[in-house]
Parts: sequence; C-alpha cells; structure tokens
Amino acid sequence: MKLTKEQQQEIKELQSQDNKTRRIISPGLEKILFEAIPILDHGFVRVIDYMGDDTSIVQAARVSYGKGTKKVSTDSGLIKYLMRHWHSTPFEMCEIKYHIKLPIFIARQWIRHRTANVNEYSARYSILDKEFYLPSKENLAAQSKSNRQGRGDILTGDQANEVLNLLKNDAERTYDNYETMLNQRYDGSTIDENKSGLARELARMNLTLNTYTQWYWKTDLLNLMNFLRLRADSHAQYEIRAYADVMLDTLKKWVPITFEAFMDYRVGGTEVSSKGKKIIKDLISGKKVDIASSGLSKREWNELMNAFDIKEKIIK
Amino acid sequence: MKLTKEQQQEIKELQSQDNKTRRIISPGLEKILFEAIPILDHGFVRVIDYMGDDTSIVQAARVSYGKGTKKVSTDSGLIKYLMRHWHSTPFEMCEIKYHIKLPIFIARQWIRHRTANVNEYSARYSILDKEFYLPSKENLAAQSKSNRQGRGDILTGDQANEVLNLLKNDAERTYDNYETMLNQRYDGSTIDENKSGLARELARMNLTLNTYTQWYWKTDLLNLMNFLRLRADSHAQYEIRAYADVMLDTLKKWVPITFEAFMDYRVGGTEVSSKGKKIIKDLISGKKVDIASSGLSKREWNELMNAFDIKEKIIK
Amino acid sequence: MKLTKEQQQEIKELQSQDNKTRRIISPGLEKILFEAIPILDHGFVRVIDYMGDDTSIVQAARVSYGKGTKKVSTDSGLIKYLMRHWHSTPFEMCEIKYHIKLPIFIARQWIRHRTANVNEYSARYSILDKEFYLPSKENLAAQSKSNRQGRGDILTGDQANEVLNLLKNDAERTYDNYETMLNQRYDGSTIDENKSGLARELARMNLTLNTYTQWYWKTDLLNLMNFLRLRADSHAQYEIRAYADVMLDTLKKWVPITFEAFMDYRVGGTEVSSKGKKIIKDLISGKKVDIASSGLSKREWNELMNAFDIKEKIIK
Amino acid sequence: MKLTKEQQQEIKELQSQDNKTRRIISPGLEKILFEAIPILDHGFVRVIDYMGDDTSIVQAARVSYGKGTKKVSTDSGLIKYLMRHWHSTPFEMCEIKYHIKLPIFIARQWIRHRTANVNEYSARYSILDKEFYLPSKENLAAQSKSNRQGRGDILTGDQANEVLNLLKNDAERTYDNYETMLNQRYDGSTIDENKSGLARELARMNLTLNTYTQWYWKTDLLNLMNFLRLRADSHAQYEIRAYADVMLDTLKKWVPITFEAFMDYRVGGTEVSSKGKKIIKDLISGKKVDIASSGLSKREWNELMNAFDIKEKIIK
Repeated sequence: MKLTKEQQQEIKELQSQDNKTRRIISPGLEKILFEAIPILDHGFVRVIDYMGDDTSIVQAARVSYGKGTKKVSTDSGLIKYLMRHWHSTPFEMCEIKYHIKLPIFIARQWIRHRTANVNEYSARYSILDKEFYLPSKENLAAQSKSNRQGRGDILTGDQANEVLNLLKNDAERTYDNYETMLNQRYDGSTIDENKSGLARELARMNLTLNTYTQWYWKTDLLNLMNFLRLRADSHAQYEIRAYADVMLDTLKKWVPITFEAFMDYRVGGTEVSSKGKKIIKDLISGKKVDIASSGLSKREWNELMNAFDIKEKIIK
Repeated sequence: MKLTKEQQQEIKELQSQDNKTRRIISPGLEKILFEAIPILDHGFVRVIDYMGDDTSIVQAARVSYGKGTKKVSTDSGLIKYLMRHWHSTPFEMCEIKYHIKLPIFIARQWIRHRTANVNEYSARYSILDKEFYLPSKENLAAQSKSNRQGRGDILTGDQANEVLNLLKNDAERTYDNYETMLNQRYDGSTIDENKSGLARELARMNLTLNTYTQWYWKTDLLNLMNFLRLRADSHAQYEIRAYADVMLDTLKKWVPITFEAFMDYRVGGTEVSSKGKKIIKDLISGKKVDIASSGLSKREWNELMNAFDIKEKIIK
Repeated sequence: MKLTKEQQQEIKELQSQDNKTRRIISPGLEKILFEAIPILDHGFVRVIDYMGDDTSIVQAARVSYGKGTKKVSTDSGLIKYLMRHWHSTPFEMCEIKYHIKLPIFIARQWIRHRTANVNEYSARYSILDKEFYLPSKENLAAQSKSNRQGRGDILTGDQANEVLNLLKNDAERTYDNYETMLNQRYDGSTIDENKSGLARELARMNLTLNTYTQWYWKTDLLNLMNFLRLRADSHAQYEIRAYADVMLDTLKKWVPITFEAFMDYRVGGTEVSSKGKKIIKDLISGKKVDIASSGLSKREWNELMNAFDIKEKIIK
Repeated sequence: MKLTKEQQQEIKELQSQDNKTRRIISPGLEKILFEAIPILDHGFVRVIDYMGDDTSIVQAARVSYGKGTKKVSTDSGLIKYLMRHWHSTPFEMCEIKYHIKLPIFIARQWIRHRTANVNEYSARYSILDKEFYLPSKENLAAQSKSNRQGRGDILTGDQANEVLNLLKNDAERTYDNYETMLNQRYDGSTIDENKSGLARELARMNLTLNTYTQWYWKTDLLNLMNFLRLRADSHAQYEIRAYADVMLDTLKKWVPITFEAFMDYRVGGTEVSSKGKKIIKDLISGKKVDIASSGLSKREWNELMNAFDIKEKIIK
C-alpha cells in the first residue's frame, strides 16, 4: 500500500481533530480512526466514522424489555443473552463506516452483502489508479481436487513464476492500452493533443479484474457481524478473508463485549442438525454410532465429527 | 408530556457529557442532543445519537466521482446537484437515532417505513404507561365528504364533548381492566396477593390504540428524507405530521445545506406528468387549454392548476 | 372465522380458474390455493399466489455453481447442501403471497419482519370489522414467574371468567363507541342524519388491540423460513405460533424437499457455542463436566443439557 | 448472441410446457416466456418466471383502501391514481424473474440496485465463457468535453480501428492466459496432464471487465420500475440502457396498464423545484424571467427550459 503525500497529510489532519461531543464514544476505535491498515499488496481498510458502542446495544435492549432486563445484572450478561438468542435489533443500533481499497474481483464478492451503504470510486467519471493485485507466492494455490470452490497445494517453481508473470504482464498491458484509448495518462496528461479519448465509461472495460478500486462502506453492527461470520470463515476466499480479519480487529476495538460474545456464539460455535443431535446423544451415552444408520451423508458426517474433534470416526 | 424525575435527571447527565472525539460533529445537533421535544399531549422526540453531517455527503460523493467533482466548486453546489439528480447513496452515509414516544395507531403507520432500525418498548415484557392520546378540540375533525382519507370541518359543541368523553372513558376503563387482569398496578404493586395475573402478552390486547408506546428509531439521512417527504406532507394524518414537523427541524439543525436543498427540490417542488407538460407548454405559449382535450382526469387537472396557482382554471 | 357469502363466492370463483401457463407449478399448493384456513376465533390464512417450487432453487443454484453442481447428484442432495451451508440466495428465487386475518397486537409483532411486502386494510379509509380475538379458556395463561416474556399456568374458575368478560365487554363497548363517533354502523348505515361523523383516521384510536385486521403479505422463501423459524418456535407467543404452524404446512405443500431440509437443519437443529462444544467433547470422551468450570451461566448450561437430553445435569 | 444447441433445446422444452394453474396469468408475458432476446453482441434477457399482473395491483390496493376504492370506477383509473401519488406497496405485489447475460462492467453498475435477488454464475466454481463485449463502431464514443460522465462524438477512422483492436486483442490474450493458468480449456480439456491448474478463484482475476457473465435476477414490479426509470434514461450508459429498453418492452407485455401510467407519470414526466415553479408561474402569466433573478444555476435553468421546450431561453 502506497499512500500519496496528500493522502498521508489528509489522514494526519483528520487525526489531529479534537472535537467535543455529547455522544457516546468508543475509546478503542477513536485511537485508530482514519488510520490506513494495509491489506494484500495495495489494499487498505480505514475506519472513517462510527456511531454507538456496547452500551448503545444495552440501552436499546432496555427500551425493548423495560423492567424485564433488570434481572440480567450486567451489560455483558445482557449482550451475551441477546447474541445467544439471536435478538437482532439492538445490534442494529450501532453503525460503522469504512474506507476500503480492494481488487475488483473481491469487490464483486463483497457487494453481494446488500444491507450496507456504498459509494464506490466511479470509473465512468475518473481514471482508476494503476494498481493491481498480484498474489504473493505463498498464496498461489492450485485448484483443489476435492472441492470445487477450494484451493489445493501451492504452485511452485517455474509454474508459479509463469503465473505471476502472466498476471503482471496482462495487468500492465491492459492498463497501458486503457491509457492509450483514453488518450490520457493517469497523471492527467494528454497523450496526443490532436486526438479525442475514448469515453471513460467504455475504456474501463479493458481493465483486468485484479485492478484496485475503492469505496466507502457503511453498515450496522448486526450486518457487519453477518459479513464477518461468512468472510472471516475458513471457507471464504483468502483475499476477502484478509480484509475480514483486519475488520474483526476493528470490531474488537469498537465493541469489546459484543466481540467476545460473537467469537463464542458465532465464530467458534457450531450448528447441529436434528439428525446430528441424535448421533451426539448416542455418543454421550456411550452407544455405538455409524454413518450407515445415521441418515447423514459422508460429508455431513465428517463435518459433525470434525466439529467435535472425534478423529477416529472421520470417513475417508 | 410528563417526564419522571428520573428521566429528567438522566437527560441532564447525558447532556453534561463532554467527550473528545476525532469524528465530525454537527454543532446544531449537539445543542439539542437528548432533549425531549414535546409533541401532542404526551409524546416526544429526542435525538439520541448521530453520525456525519453535510460534509460527510460531500466526502462520499467525491470518492464516487473523484476528480469529476472538482468542477462543482462548493459543497452546497454539489449537494444541490446530488439532490436534483436523485443521487441517493451519498445521503445514506449519515445516520441518526431518535427516541420517540407516540400513540400506537401512529406507530402502526410509522413502522411501514421499513428501512429503519427499531427497538420498541415491549408489552410482552413490561407494563405500558398509563398515557393515552386525546386530541385537542381544534383537531377533532369530521370525516371529509369528498376524500376518503381526509378530514373535514371541526366537530363542535356537544358532539365534540361527547367524542372526547368517549375516548377518555374508554381508554381509562380498558387500562384499569388491563391492571385488573395483570393483577398489578403500573407502579408494580400487586393487587391481590392470592391471585396470579394474566400473562402480559395477553393482557395488552385490552388496551386501546391511542395508548402511548415508545421506541428507538434509527435511519440514514436518505430514508429520513423519504419519511419526511411523505409524513410532513399536507396529505399525511395530522398526528404523524406533528412528529414529522419537529423532525424537519432536527434535520435543519443537523445538515443545514441538505435541508435547504430538500425543501427546494422535494418538499416545495412538484411533479408534472407527460400530459401535464403539454398543458404547461401550451399555457406558456399563450394557447388555450381545456380539460376535455387534456387527457387528464378532473382531479389530476385540479392538482396541476393548483401546483402552478392557476386559480381560474380549477374545475368544481 | 365467518366468511360472508360474497367472500365464499369469490373464493369459489377463484378456485374454479383453469388457466394455462408455461410456468413451473407446485401441485401441492395449487390444491389449497385461495382456501381460507381458520386460525384462532376469527382469523385465517389464505395462499393467494406463488412463484417457483423446489426445482427453482436447484435451477438458481446451478446457474451460480455451474458445472460445479454436477457432483451433487440429486435435487434433494443439493437443497440439503444449500440449507446446511446457509446459502441464502437460491431460496430467494421463490415467492409466496398470503391473505391473512389477524388481531392487531399480533400484526404488530409480525410487521417487525421487514423483508416482506404488505398491503393492510386501512382504518383511515374504511371501517374495521366488528371482530375481536378472545382467547379460548385453555389459552388463558398466567404470567410466568420465572420468565419475563413467558406464560405460566392456566387461569381457572372465577378469575378466568372475569378476564374473558372484561375482554369481551371492553372490546364490544369500545367498538360501539367507535360506531357512535363515526356516526355510522359497520353496515354503512348512518346513525344520525343530522350529525357529521368523526374522521375515520381518528375514531379508530378507540379500538382495542385485539380487534382483527387483515393484510396481503408477500415474501420470498428465504424470509418465510426466517419468519417460521422464529414464530413456529416454542418461545413465540401462542397466538402468532398458531399462524406459523399453519404456514409451516403450506411450506410443506409448496416445496416439500426444502421443507424437509428446513425441519432437519433449522427447526430441529441446535447451536452450540464455543464453550458448549468443549463440554460436549468432554462428555463424549467420558470426562466429568460441571457448571462451575464450564464458563456457562446457569441458564446457558441448562439450555445445552436440554438440547442433548442430559436430564441428570439440569441445574435447578 | 450464440446459444448452444443444448440451450436452444432446453428453451424449446420449457416453452412447450402446458401446465394448469389457478393463478392469475399474464397472456402477454406467457408468449415470450423463456425466449432469449438478444442484446449487444453476446448478451440476452429472458423472462423466466413471474407472479401477478395488473389485477394483482388493484386487488392489493382494494384490500388497503377497502370500500374507499369503489369511487375510482376502473382498474386503469386506480392504477393511475396509485402511480401519481407514489403509493408503492400495491406495485410490490407482483414479481418477475429474468435470466440475463451481460458484460461484467455492466453487471457492476446493475448490482447497485440492492432490492433484488441475484444468483450469478460463479467463477470460483466454474470457468467463464470465452465471450467479450466489443462495442459496435457507432457506439465507440469519445469522452464528452462538457460532462464528466457523458459521451461525445463517435471516434472514427484509424483511431476507431485501433481501439477495437486493442479491446479485442487484450480480451483474447487475457482469456488465453486464463486458460493457461487454469491448465484447462473452456471445453474442460486439460492442457498439460503433468501440471496442476491455478485455483479458479484466483485465475479469474486476469479477465477483463468486458467478459460476459450471467445471472438470475428477480425483483418486484416497484423496484423494476425504479431500475428502469434510472437505466432507460438518456443519462444512463448506452450499454445498460440497451438492457433496460428490452426490459421496458417486457414490462409492457406483463402489465400493460401499469406500463402506460409509468410512461406518463415517471418516464415522460418531469420534476420542478420550488424555485422552478416560480419561473413557470411567471412565464404562464406573461412576466419576463431571467436567470440572474431566478436563483437557479445555469445548468438548472437549462434543464427547466429544456423540460418545457422553451428554446429561446437556453443559456449557452
């Protein structure tokens, strides 16, 4: 990630603000506000603004449940209760806004989370930065043989080099030709004064999907957790997980009590189906279990055994 | 509106907060934060929290349009441009949270605006306050003869008194019986130690629709304006308009530039249909127009003439 | 539930339609289309329209996963896979529309599910039916002592009669006074020709929350299942559960394969937290477990023991 | 657009379905169901399924407004009334599902309409088709000088040829290298049996933004009209407008009465701001108007004069 001097200066100025407010503040988040946290080779995540903290959740829940919440003695107990029982609306009372720089093919995955507000840099209006995502060698994974959406072993040697060269050369050439078609360089200079440039909204179609874009992305705490549960998961594509992991850390700084409950009940938890429950009950009471009579598919069976670390029962 | 001493004390404490933040603040909104602005006989609106101000909209638009926005020289010019051309996403970057006390029949209208987050006081958990909306005499309107959803003249004399008595007596009696069924008074005291009370979730069904409820209501600036455009309109029911009018004033304090553009392009503006445009063009060029050849219904014709103050052409 | 002759006739005519379509049909749902299934004392649920069936989910998933889905040999296997891994978008490809008659206090719970389309009978425009929900005796539950939102034992004897009388009398009296204020009876006849009636939008505030309303409610299959998971649950209020139970049955008729997966993975399944997983692992491997060292609250512990039928470990 | 034989066969089979249903059908839409309507060089739009027609809107409105709607004598009058007064919920009662093939850079614009359900062909799972959008010569527009997001004159001669060659060559080369990295051809054949292929989720990043993707896109009638109002507009990018225009035609076939009201009140209509109304009033009453005293910007002034065809007052 390379910030221009102007950007660095802007961040410095924003961070030097010292405003007075009657609003609730989150001390953890104030510390990192505006900071550009680097991700992948050119990406970043910045927290730009926020509203509320752990106590806002408690406050909203107490409006709903009135005197009924007095029995849960602590804020932490109440937040855990809400998380466990999927009470969603109190978590919607907090809001966060990020500035994110990310490759377009990741932006395409990300945007499928619809309950967020987005302002993306528009290549209809402006020329995109000359920055492309090139995986580091340890992330250059082969297609998994067993899982259609997974990654297998890491490519090595000549093949790894070939792939990186192809990615690099194609990104650079298509970008150069993008400039040629625009008749303009990224720095704004015209290439040939006697020519018109192709409309930006057309020229952009020549860029590759690893070109970086950027956006403001704003969401409430509930939907942030929904996003993180899916995207910080081991099944998520590595490149989006890199963002989710950094955002998990901002979640911890923002709402530490909620973060803890989220890790316990969502991220670290598991779901057990009706049929799965029967197997677990049998295992607890010492009965023999086997896949044939379980009604589970092989994959389901292994997921269950995995979740509870029952290694000897995994079926190959 | 009667606040308990405890509530007054809580507001005082919240208002005495003096936190430091790096976030953007809205000076106009900070001044009235937490204040309970009275509405109707027992209702109120309080701004509880917010995120962003006019400059947040500009900042988001500049991310989207990049260097393309430089030509619009001022923040005010850019906000007006966005409003005029229905660019919605930059306005979604600001968020506001209200605490509102309102009669249930108004809450039922209000909740139809789905793009908001709500935590309502729950009568499954807690006992509702003994407070009912009783219209003031000048709001005791008869059913309109011409408009199925409108109000006509004000009821007067005996009939007005009769209506107010019925509303008051029915609300009080149903509330008293609510307490009897609960076997509990609002203050928490048990009525008859030898009896159980009916479940709260059942007893509440005996209350009338003018009973007050309360909620936290959080929305973004775009959806707040959508709400206000419909509910601060002269066709909206008086009782919800009373809330919308107060909230319009909070909008002005929060984002003064956006407020001005909103009043010009939305609230004070009008829409003209394809057929309507033809009439206006004819009127401008001095041609004669008449309803028969216009293709407009009588109602549509009058709406058009009204919008442009052409009084002599209104059809009775 | 009493349908007027006109309504019965209308249903009959709708059911006699015999249209030709190239669209996918759901034979199970066609059979009960338009039928009014009675719920509570005056309520009903009618399926009015639908789009898609189980194969629409499979079709959408195959667009997404392309050749990747060929390995899952059957539609049923694919739907189970999607359900287990929380793939949500294929389930959004089916849509259903209900006509529902329900008491207002239940409508207020229901409407909190925001991802649905609703057209409700408007008491601003029209006069509501003279129909109120009165619980049957076996549903006249006392407030639970241990659970703020729960029900305890059934009220009996004089107290039960008293409650039913209060509910009945208050509903009838407030409705009579509603008519008086409107100066109009439900059948449309004017009471006193020399008087105006109070505006409908005002008079309605005198009605009690057990008055019936009705609406068209349309949602996609994913959001229907979200609704049913919460509202067909044992923690839901009995009165809304009565609706959810009937709708579960329409789900089964509509998309039988999805229904089966839903019952196995959602309704009959359970979630286990990170700490809970540790307890289960210990139990399976024969270790002793106790609440003190578990990190679980008493309530959490009991929920876990309950989920896996470990009766001897329930803590009183 | 080239459909494979398999696809043509599938469409033929779907169109030969002759199912019986009690549901409302739209005769106009039934005729074109499943048909692939060609757009751009390789794209298409197919209507796959639908729910409801014009009468469903009327039916929903009559539930809401009850006896209040009897005065509007015809379905057409009621639909026009609803459209004129922005009553949105009755239009949400109809639903339509499209299968669409479109270039990725257009898909990125399209997906910003969040209130729709989408299942997109996933390049994590499957290999994308070797198809790219190449503009036809008459659509090869230069960047507008006056409008940051607009198009100017058409590029001609050598420059046009150069642009088309660059687009074509870059798309083909990056696709070839995509296959090389995957170690697999589009037809599924392996290139080098001794090598692994790069994971699909990585290799896709080498593709250019004019590569075609496809998706199922489902939305309700209200949101379809919101989409069409923005995307069939003259300010929309030509390539998305090409889709919107075809979809406008499907709207006409589906709900002819709604279509007509939509064209009159939305597409062919205009909005006039508070300040603009004053100018129009002055023009009608024969007063002189000028931009200096109008409070309008030059651009706003011209938009107003344009809307009402007042050519002599346009400011250069």
